[in-house]
Amino acid sequence: MATLLPDGLATPALVVDPDVLESNISRMAEASRAQGFALRPHAKAHKCAQIGDLQLQAGARGLSVATIGEAEAFARVGVDDLFIAYPVWLDADKAQRLRRLANRVALRVGVESVEGAQRLGNAVRGSARPVEVLVEVDSGSRRTGVQPQVAGEVGKAAADAGLIVAGVFTFPGHGYGHDARARERAARDEERMLGQAAQVLRDLGLDVHVVSGGSTPTAGQWQPGAVNELRPGVYVFNDATQLAIGTCGVENLALVAAATVISVPAPDRFVLDLGSKVLGSDRSPWVTGHGYMPQFPQGSITGLWEHHAVVRLPEGVRGPRLGSVVAVVPNHICTPVNLADELLVVRDRKVIDRWQVTARGANT
Amino acid sequence: MATLLPDGLATPALVVDPDVLESNISRMAEASRAQGFALRPHAKAHKCAQIGDLQLQAGARGLSVATIGEAEAFARVGVDDLFIAYPVWLDADKAQRLRRLANRVALRVGVESVEGAQRLGNAVRGSARPVEVLVEVDSGSRRTGVQPQVAGEVGKAAADAGLIVAGVFTFPGHGYGHDARARERAARDEERMLGQAAQVLRDLGLDVHVVSGGSTPTAGQWQPGAVNELRPGVYVFNDATQLAIGTCGVENLALVAAATVISVPAPDRFVLDLGSKVLGSDRSPWVTGHGYMPQFPQGSITGLWEHHAVVRLPEGVRGPRLGSVVAVVPNHICTPVNLADELLVVRDRKVIDRWQVTARGANT
Repeated sequence: MATLLPDGLATPALVVDPDVLESNISRMAEASRAQGFALRPHAKAHKCAQIGDLQLQAGARGLSVATIGEAEAFARVGVDDLFIAYPVWLDADKAQRLRRLANRVALRVGVESVEGAQRLGNAVRGSARPVEVLVEVDSGSRRTGVQPQVAGEVGKAAADAGLIVAGVFTFPGHGYGHDARARERAARDEERMLGQAAQVLRDLGLDVHVVSGGSTPTAGQWQPGAVNELRPGVYVFNDATQLAIGTCGVENLALVAAATVISVPAPDRFVLDLGSKVLGSDRSPWVTGHGYMPQFPQGSITGLWEHHAVVRLPEGVRGPRLGSVVAVVPNHICTPVNLADELLVVRDRKVIDRWQVTARGANT
Repeated sequence: MATLLPDGLATPALVVDPDVLESNISRMAEASRAQGFALRPHAKAHKCAQIGDLQLQAGARGLSVATIGEAEAFARVGVDDLFIAYPVWLDADKAQRLRRLANRVALRVGVESVEGAQRLGNAVRGSARPVEVLVEVDSGSRRTGVQPQVAGEVGKAAADAGLIVAGVFTFPGHGYGHDARARERAARDEERMLGQAAQVLRDLGLDVHVVSGGSTPTAGQWQPGAVNELRPGVYVFNDATQLAIGTCGVENLALVAAATVISVPAPDRFVLDLGSKVLGSDRSPWVTGHGYMPQFPQGSITGLWEHHAVVRLPEGVRGPRLGSVVAVVPNHICTPVNLADELLVVRDRKVIDRWQVTARGANT
């Protein structure tokens, strides 16, 4: 873990341990191979060309992204198989951008409404490569996605609009939870709801072959045969939420925010030059405070402003000196990455590389 | 208010109403003039060259910023009087950057420790213009800043290090609260703690003349003579938190996030293409949900993911159509601005300008 930070690091900064990163990537790739899933990692968690490359080299089929902008960013750096795992709504500008993408890479797009499918069909009609769609199914997170019985009308609209209906996908957001049973239950929901939706589409005569599921928490929880594609994101770095819900250990944390102690107002309190503009303010119900400090596991970031993190220590625990550099594991990795322009790659207390966050801010 | 959005806007996007913005800026400038305060607005809330210009034209003395990077960004666009309202800790790289700034603009910097003051003195020794410092005082927010009786040793260290000790400053973070009395009490705390610290420094023979206080909530709450400089930030745009605590009305909201309805899964629920990567996840204790929707004041954003906002409506309230564009007022304006590359300036449903977020991501 990247807690041994270089001296004289300009803070705040996001620091990656490349060895932990590579081991996280290869472990997920091997597990997917062993269990027979196609792996299509979600690149929104890292947004980095170099990390996408590592995932593809380790055997990923392609990448998942959340926006047209992320797809454009990864297409620019040479990724040629992309799934926009989102029910994209196309206005004139986005329709043009999507068509340009479809001329360039193998493209899959999420759909979850008849009108959304029709707009997509109109946008990519006659594009160089046919565009595949996956119908989004709500497996229990109550976000986007249709109930299995509605998947038919969406799939039919997509097929009528000239799109290739390749399958179904879901995000099991309700699989986040302290106990492994929550994750197992969510995995069962994924299997059941995706399976029903896929059957509805097959009954319409559609050649549905992609059944694409979740997330870092539900990865590897499925029964053989039910789901055949996996889209985890956070696993490349892990974070304080994954640590809290038990899907990773401290040794699997590949990214920390490095911060300097700028104030020691009392023996049980210190302040870091790190705030919501670097860490984000995400705070899942499972974490304590605003980040996990491996050097001060009993400490808690009780206050977070834009540029200040106030840390409280239990009585008797010795805090760091003014000017020391402290590592903080973010609660949720996706937001800090999206706030940073670059990631510092550190090995043996030396910055060995700087990776630009290729798709930072690509929100449209 | 910018709820009348242009057709065909590529969402998500941050949209500014320039007329509300200018009226917010001139109202604060007039109030400061009338009450005899110097106004030094905090630019971290907007990070925009154009908005800094409007503030300076309206009579601001200079700008406050939170980081050396923000100071560099505003110096580059010609602002020549900057206060880094933060107890900057200088490593070798930051020392060099600060010295370069000191050669270029009138610079004030916050200090709150003896060692911090010494490092600052070493960094700027012999710079083209003398650097002023303000000693940070904790007026009750328990973040950074010293107690008044400790201000003397910090001030003495700064003076010994060759810096000009011009005064004291504080941030009354505890002034956020539903009722006006919380704000009044915080304003009293500011006056008392700043006054005591200034007296301690004067007793050492230092020519303390700047007594610099708060924030948008405590602005205008002080007694004459106690505080003579004001550093509000959020007032340029206001946000859902300011609306909730009553420091502004709906007519004073100058920025909204524009989002498209991408899913209508049920009559009482719709989903926007807007998430924490645009809105941030800040959620003060005073707000309901993850943002305020002027077109749906009874609606509540109950779920926020990175690219999805799930809105719930009370029974009987008619929701928007799939594909409509909806305005969302962020809970806390500073985070969304820092996440955006540009702000769209909209008048009469037309995009009349695009302002680059000059200091986006300038966190070090």
